[in-house]
Amino acid sequence: MCEPMLHGENEESGLRHYCGVFGAVAIEPWPTELDIPRIITLGLVGLQHRGQESAGIVTTTGEEGQFITKKGMGLVEQIFKNEDMIKLKGNLGIGHTRYSTMGGSELINIQPFVVNTAHGKIAVAHNGEIVNAPALRHKLLKSGVGLSTDSDSELITQFLTHPPSCGEPNGANWINRIKSMMEVATLSYALLIMYKDVIYAVRDPFGNRPLSIGKILPPSFKRMDLVPDEDIEGFVVGSETCSFHTIGAKFYRDVLPGEIVEISKSGIKSCGIVPRPNGQLPAFCIFEYVYFARADSVFESQMVYTARQRCGRQLALEAPADADIVSTVPESATPSAVEYAKTVGLPYTEIFSKNRYIGRTFIQPTTRLRQLGVAKKFGPLTDNFDGKRIVLIDDSIVRGNTMQALVKLLKKYGAKEVHVRVASPPIKYPCYMGINIPTKQELIANRIPLEDLPQHLCADSVKYLSIEGLVKAVQEGIKDNGQAVGHCTACLSGDYPVKLDW
Amino acid sequence: MCEPMLHGENEESGLRHYCGVFGAVAIEPWPTELDIPRIITLGLVGLQHRGQESAGIVTTTGEEGQFITKKGMGLVEQIFKNEDMIKLKGNLGIGHTRYSTMGGSELINIQPFVVNTAHGKIAVAHNGEIVNAPALRHKLLKSGVGLSTDSDSELITQFLTHPPSCGEPNGANWINRIKSMMEVATLSYALLIMYKDVIYAVRDPFGNRPLSIGKILPPSFKRMDLVPDEDIEGFVVGSETCSFHTIGAKFYRDVLPGEIVEISKSGIKSCGIVPRPNGQLPAFCIFEYVYFARADSVFESQMVYTARQRCGRQLALEAPADADIVSTVPESATPSAVEYAKTVGLPYTEIFSKNRYIGRTFIQPTTRLRQLGVAKKFGPLTDNFDGKRIVLIDDSIVRGNTMQALVKLLKKYGAKEVHVRVASPPIKYPCYMGINIPTKQELIANRIPLEDLPQHLCADSVKYLSIEGLVKAVQEGIKDNGQAVGHCTACLSGDYPVKLDW
Amino acid sequence: MCEPMLHGENEESGLRHYCGVFGAVAIEPWPTELDIPRIITLGLVGLQHRGQESAGIVTTTGEEGQFITKKGMGLVEQIFKNEDMIKLKGNLGIGHTRYSTMGGSELINIQPFVVNTAHGKIAVAHNGEIVNAPALRHKLLKSGVGLSTDSDSELITQFLTHPPSCGEPNGANWINRIKSMMEVATLSYALLIMYKDVIYAVRDPFGNRPLSIGKILPPSFKRMDLVPDEDIEGFVVGSETCSFHTIGAKFYRDVLPGEIVEISKSGIKSCGIVPRPNGQLPAFCIFEYVYFARADSVFESQMVYTARQRCGRQLALEAPADADIVSTVPESATPSAVEYAKTVGLPYTEIFSKNRYIGRTFIQPTTRLRQLGVAKKFGPLTDNFDGKRIVLIDDSIVRGNTMQALVKLLKKYGAKEVHVRVASPPIKYPCYMGINIPTKQELIANRIPLEDLPQHLCADSVKYLSIEGLVKAVQEGIKDNGQAVGHCTACLSGDYPVKLDW
Amino acid sequence: MCEPMLHGENEESGLRHYCGVFGAVAIEPWPTELDIPRIITLGLVGLQHRGQESAGIVTTTGEEGQFITKKGMGLVEQIFKNEDMIKLKGNLGIGHTRYSTMGGSELINIQPFVVNTAHGKIAVAHNGEIVNAPALRHKLLKSGVGLSTDSDSELITQFLTHPPSCGEPNGANWINRIKSMMEVATLSYALLIMYKDVIYAVRDPFGNRPLSIGKILPPSFKRMDLVPDEDIEGFVVGSETCSFHTIGAKFYRDVLPGEIVEISKSGIKSCGIVPRPNGQLPAFCIFEYVYFARADSVFESQMVYTARQRCGRQLALEAPADADIVSTVPESATPSAVEYAKTVGLPYTEIFSKNRYIGRTFIQPTTRLRQLGVAKKFGPLTDNFDGKRIVLIDDSIVRGNTMQALVKLLKKYGAKEVHVRVASPPIKYPCYMGINIPTKQELIANRIPLEDLPQHLCADSVKYLSIEGLVKAVQEGIKDNGQAVGHCTACLSGDYPVKLDW
Repeated sequence: MCEPMLHGENEESGLRHYCGVFGAVAIEPWPTELDIPRIITLGLVGLQHRGQESAGIVTTTGEEGQFITKKGMGLVEQIFKNEDMIKLKGNLGIGHTRYSTMGGSELINIQPFVVNTAHGKIAVAHNGEIVNAPALRHKLLKSGVGLSTDSDSELITQFLTHPPSCGEPNGANWINRIKSMMEVATLSYALLIMYKDVIYAVRDPFGNRPLSIGKILPPSFKRMDLVPDEDIEGFVVGSETCSFHTIGAKFYRDVLPGEIVEISKSGIKSCGIVPRPNGQLPAFCIFEYVYFARADSVFESQMVYTARQRCGRQLALEAPADADIVSTVPESATPSAVEYAKTVGLPYTEIFSKNRYIGRTFIQPTTRLRQLGVAKKFGPLTDNFDGKRIVLIDDSIVRGNTMQALVKLLKKYGAKEVHVRVASPPIKYPCYMGINIPTKQELIANRIPLEDLPQHLCADSVKYLSIEGLVKAVQEGIKDNGQAVGHCTACLSGDYPVKLDW
Repeated sequence: MCEPMLHGENEESGLRHYCGVFGAVAIEPWPTELDIPRIITLGLVGLQHRGQESAGIVTTTGEEGQFITKKGMGLVEQIFKNEDMIKLKGNLGIGHTRYSTMGGSELINIQPFVVNTAHGKIAVAHNGEIVNAPALRHKLLKSGVGLSTDSDSELITQFLTHPPSCGEPNGANWINRIKSMMEVATLSYALLIMYKDVIYAVRDPFGNRPLSIGKILPPSFKRMDLVPDEDIEGFVVGSETCSFHTIGAKFYRDVLPGEIVEISKSGIKSCGIVPRPNGQLPAFCIFEYVYFARADSVFESQMVYTARQRCGRQLALEAPADADIVSTVPESATPSAVEYAKTVGLPYTEIFSKNRYIGRTFIQPTTRLRQLGVAKKFGPLTDNFDGKRIVLIDDSIVRGNTMQALVKLLKKYGAKEVHVRVASPPIKYPCYMGINIPTKQELIANRIPLEDLPQHLCADSVKYLSIEGLVKAVQEGIKDNGQAVGHCTACLSGDYPVKLDW
Repeated sequence: MCEPMLHGENEESGLRHYCGVFGAVAIEPWPTELDIPRIITLGLVGLQHRGQESAGIVTTTGEEGQFITKKGMGLVEQIFKNEDMIKLKGNLGIGHTRYSTMGGSELINIQPFVVNTAHGKIAVAHNGEIVNAPALRHKLLKSGVGLSTDSDSELITQFLTHPPSCGEPNGANWINRIKSMMEVATLSYALLIMYKDVIYAVRDPFGNRPLSIGKILPPSFKRMDLVPDEDIEGFVVGSETCSFHTIGAKFYRDVLPGEIVEISKSGIKSCGIVPRPNGQLPAFCIFEYVYFARADSVFESQMVYTARQRCGRQLALEAPADADIVSTVPESATPSAVEYAKTVGLPYTEIFSKNRYIGRTFIQPTTRLRQLGVAKKFGPLTDNFDGKRIVLIDDSIVRGNTMQALVKLLKKYGAKEVHVRVASPPIKYPCYMGINIPTKQELIANRIPLEDLPQHLCADSVKYLSIEGLVKAVQEGIKDNGQAVGHCTACLSGDYPVKLDW
Repeated sequence: MCEPMLHGENEESGLRHYCGVFGAVAIEPWPTELDIPRIITLGLVGLQHRGQESAGIVTTTGEEGQFITKKGMGLVEQIFKNEDMIKLKGNLGIGHTRYSTMGGSELINIQPFVVNTAHGKIAVAHNGEIVNAPALRHKLLKSGVGLSTDSDSELITQFLTHPPSCGEPNGANWINRIKSMMEVATLSYALLIMYKDVIYAVRDPFGNRPLSIGKILPPSFKRMDLVPDEDIEGFVVGSETCSFHTIGAKFYRDVLPGEIVEISKSGIKSCGIVPRPNGQLPAFCIFEYVYFARADSVFESQMVYTARQRCGRQLALEAPADADIVSTVPESATPSAVEYAKTVGLPYTEIFSKNRYIGRTFIQPTTRLRQLGVAKKFGPLTDNFDGKRIVLIDDSIVRGNTMQALVKLLKKYGAKEVHVRVASPPIKYPCYMGINIPTKQELIANRIPLEDLPQHLCADSVKYLSIEGLVKAVQEGIKDNGQAVGHCTACLSGDYPVKLDW
């Protein structure tokens, strides 16, 4: 018999990203009608899946220009109305989109932050989480600085401005300041720092969070690959390349782990790479491939969609099932499911119709309705599975509530068997690098022994992809370009890139 | 060369439904924890795709009970918070979800309407549009009634209450009143009328708008088809059966064209069928199959998803294409596309990743960005189609702007050829039966000759499903149950079920 | 010892008006820059004290023009922004401001109502309450009309449109319709009815609610009394003449009890007077003088401020006190207090400083703070009364909580004695004519015997003005113009103008 | 002839305060039901006239307790609902109310600020403006601190935390830190600094902004002056003593210019006085008496109301007028007007009825209506002044628009003469100490020569109180307690307490 669902749980509590960052710069001579604030807004819309609760943009006309700031709670397109577009002026700017707990007072935490320093104003947008924040905080407070938030981003900002020790007789040397910050804080961040008419794009030495650069094409381009470089009108930099599509930009290259890239009206310049301690490998978050990133983004020269397909194929090899059809929990598991089906030779069949209009305010159901809550979002396509044995593919299982509810729903509506296959390994450990994972106690992989999972989920069998299988599936698509390759699997394996000693 | 996009158009302006209706009744003895207001709320969530701008619910405890009303602007789950659930009490009730132009003053138009009559209060929820409204309005005003809105629903309501001529010596005879209303207003409505402890479910004689009845199962049911009838705890009635899944209800039967069904704590009773004039066939809106309904709904004993699959197969037979892959404009065209691919023997491949977080407030783009607006919603999965010949399936084309933008996007990102195939015929005529269609001048089928469409859409070929093909694909799945079968194709053919003489 | 304050009571629960009405018409030739919608808005601002929770305006360009409507919740200036002023066009219009319980769904009740009738559209704004509403409702429902609200205003509207029996071969005869409505509904209303390019201003036969007409002066006028009649640019009509000041209008005359006045671009025309039943006297609400009206309004040819002064003088004659200073509960009791002081020969001294920024959301105080709640609104000017014997004048006492709290506050801050004097008689009976009075049980005059009042209020003595004294004080300022004079004192005496037989 | 009103001006643009501060501490043993968060809320309600656009409260349970913060836009009672009162816990806390330009992003500026320092968290609330802010800012940035706002309050906060130079081997010595801040920033602030279980109340050496201490009385007190000191339950500290009335607190003493007072559960302790540079006199803002403070507040041992009365008397001596009546622009000029009338021997008569319901959103009137705009707020009591010669007293004139409009209004409604008398001298200079004054060009005293003012204001004569007269009127009520007395008259005389050298 199936176990009862835990009271008070809901299907919402999965993994959650903290942020996405996006910047844009027009190159000289400034193309008419190249509207940088609008480009940043649209870029943030393309990163909306990385944070839906607040967003901010800071623009400037450069050298002598003021910073113009607009922030708000809600989706990007709700915050930036046309009237804001008129106020937000400039030839360069940076933006940020973010997940956060609600509440007016949280407005103080919306990025980018603008800070006055002895060397002028800077604006900072940050995706990630400083692993050794407590130690750094302590150091900063001791030096006499007051901190008004608990955010890592304020920490980074004060670390950038504080130490006048860098020795800069001829004015501000931000590259040295950034490097000295990177040496004490090695994990994890993708940073955009705007100063006068320059944006510095920075990735931590482990490359834990993604950051890519693109070129803005002229409006008349017919085919992206036919635009000559001298026609490029500007540069963009953002957490994911999917944000480039909306504004007609072409992917150029990733910011490398540890690299500082200077972007200005004169073009792009690498300002060096801060090395990893002890010659370690990079540690790019493998869950960006599994779950977080949008399928049309490109990391390490491969499309996320393709990596997910390979995960599905690998899963089919590791954990085939005797069944009639293969299906998916829409939408992110679909590439894995289609490939799994092809590999095992079973028909791929849709079994759920998704309700696109689920609001954010949830009605607390009575006990009798809670079990059916999942049907609000996933309507069963009954004729497609009635009396059949189903392989149901999902990209990951966090707490397990949604999966349990889905399996029960399928059985109530006539499924003969349900075999759950997960295109990633069990999640067991917390992430301290920018991802919000439920507590260890809430993770189903820690709560229920693997052998008891089928009964718990009411399924006929439950199997995961292995860690090795996932790493293999992800890495085999990365073209050899001489760069070291490495991925963080801490939430799956417990192996963190740096020692956690607090 | 491709034609430029019309200035000021946007991809939003498609077809739009006006409404969905939903009702629920608990049967005696009232099951504990059977929460009728919550069931109606969840039912409306399941009908959210039929109207997202406002919703309302009226409940009552029956015979002597008061009507309790809650209405609001926005999505169902935004309007009905937990605190409302406490206030909304009762063993029966009806609800309505609706598309409307925004504006506080529009609150007056949110249904259900509650009206005091000489025979007591009634509440009315209506989906559809009265074809001969102008004539009926005139008649009613002449009799001395003042009308405070322009809505058909007020018209229906006053027609139900007004004529005391039905001769009812022993109190209210609502069935006679409803019948006499149906005789003067033959098109189009699915109506729920609540009076004391009874809900009357009514469909116009042509059955133009859908309305189905379901049975509420006990919470413990394991398999829907194993619940005996004596365990049924209540009844629901709604525009689409997809609304039954969320609340654990089992589809029972459609309300027939012209039928009045009485639903109460004692069960269900048919109160007769008002015949169509001149023995005409029914005229169920064929676009419910093509576009409006959710794929997991069942009409005329067949799942909408399956009908869409047959449309895809029929389209493949009528309009094959020489290409490398078959793909879809997600999400409603997917069943057609998968079936088209199978029929022509080409691989089905996803080419777009959908951005689920597009807000409702649109930033007015500059000319240079307008063309790329479609990429906000559809991110290209470039590796999946680069250098390939694509068959792109859509369920319908209204103004053509989205399709033009999608084709251009695909070509910019490397598609070699794009062959557009539409799983329904060209839309050419207005609907006067509850669907909001752009003006004749805006419909692409009236603006651009079929032979010029490829050039206009920048596509290599464009083909539609024929009207006959659509009717065949829809009707061949309807099991012969002795009922007459017929569908309204007015927006495609210009053949309206009744003569339009105003 | 003073009695403890009743738990849960608050100082807010006094008497409350339901509404104010205002209309304006430009006369031909239409003066340029005479902005009728803005004039109505400003007129409603001048009536804001008669209702602060919602307001509405309907305008028209006359004969063939459409009605344009704007309504909303909140204060007039919050609802009618500049952008609304552009949409609201026309040469005539009517408006309404209203008190109501909050709640979005209440929008349906915001006036003016616009109704389609067989004879065209009318718009109706109503101040008052139909005493025999239940009987009229019953009659209307029986004739087959459905009513969608419980409001008297819908009742009036349907009664105006319903009976086609008035015999009108040559089109609409609204005057006859209005008269026939007035014959069945004699109490109480001040009505504005707009039809095509005419506004009908109507007062019930008892003249219970006020309604006055003013002339719009040209902008250049230096002194109101020097503007010749041929320069008049339009007419206004409103519940109180204080609404005329804001828009530069000059008081012309009252609409008489039972009178119908037609106002149009051609000027003003009386359409006759519907007589009171059985030759009764008029019954103008005496509490308009005591409390409701603004001090700068003029009724029956006298300024309200002056009538209040006479109430203070009369109170001094009826109930003098041995004390050191005379003071007031600001602000409406000030004219009475100043005149009382002058009559008894004591100095008038301010003892409270009023906090103008009390919000509408009240923090529920703990028991220890509740007693001091009144100090939020009234700050004691301690040096002005420390060690002194005070006569404290208020215009009326409803529940008595505020007065009890004020007396306690004065004593805590050093007052030696406090003698309460009330410039109106005890309120004992409900009003069915448009005023919201707390229940009989809540009225202090019904709860506490007069002789126990000093102890209850912690005062050294408490005295009221007599009913005769109030009537005398009010009537002696009315110039004899041949009109019958009479006032409704029902809430004080229990003598209602008509028999209440429901 | 009167001059036309300047286009685009409005009567709203007067002087504006920036802030009010309030703190409260319960003394041991903590009295049950002494609700500190509620006391702070009510205290802020009593300071609402010092800032209506946002407010904040920070509370703590002391020593080890966390700081709990609640902030918001709007009036105090709109921000602090009952549900907030539950969350805000503690035995001590500070609050702030503030005027600011609107806008969500301004939330970042709402006080109190909470800052983490090397010595723990502090919360800071500030009223005033740092005169030498630019120099201090520069100094702070140079030392490597980043500043994220332009506010003086962040400046103060960082100055308090930054210099570790105070030498504190045994932990935090906040008193030394505060003193060292006060030595560099001498003007102007009333500060509340909360650290662990202590509140430091600080006034700048010139005493420019007010700050007073009160004792919380037990709930049962009958007369304030009879409560023995051992019954005192706590302490409050706030910008004005009018805030003490609401919460049953008794004025104890002012914080002296330059003094630091420590308030804790153990009681009150003076921590010394930082002297003024060069033995200067104090410079308490004289406009607190004239306009800003509530009439029931006590400064320097005298009630503000009484000081205003003396201003009226002095004005009568300096500038009598030959007239029939004396009246006031309600409400703040009333004490002066009543005393002026008594001194010159003319009757005091009200001539305006104030509309209490003027919203904050103003409709832009047409030219023809602009002149009458003032009548929205001030309704003329025509019978009281028709045909009479009026002396109209106001407390101050800033731009002059309101006064011009009022005089015109009176004349249009029949006033024979209007003699304007102002109970303070002409305002000519900017304030850099916390008051928002219109630009020099906008001040009427700089725009119109005194001799042209009658014509400009359409008045028959216009006279101001002299600076000497104002100082005399204010100072003659201050009891000699050995303290130096001095007032800032910078906005009138141009004599600033410190040299302005930026």
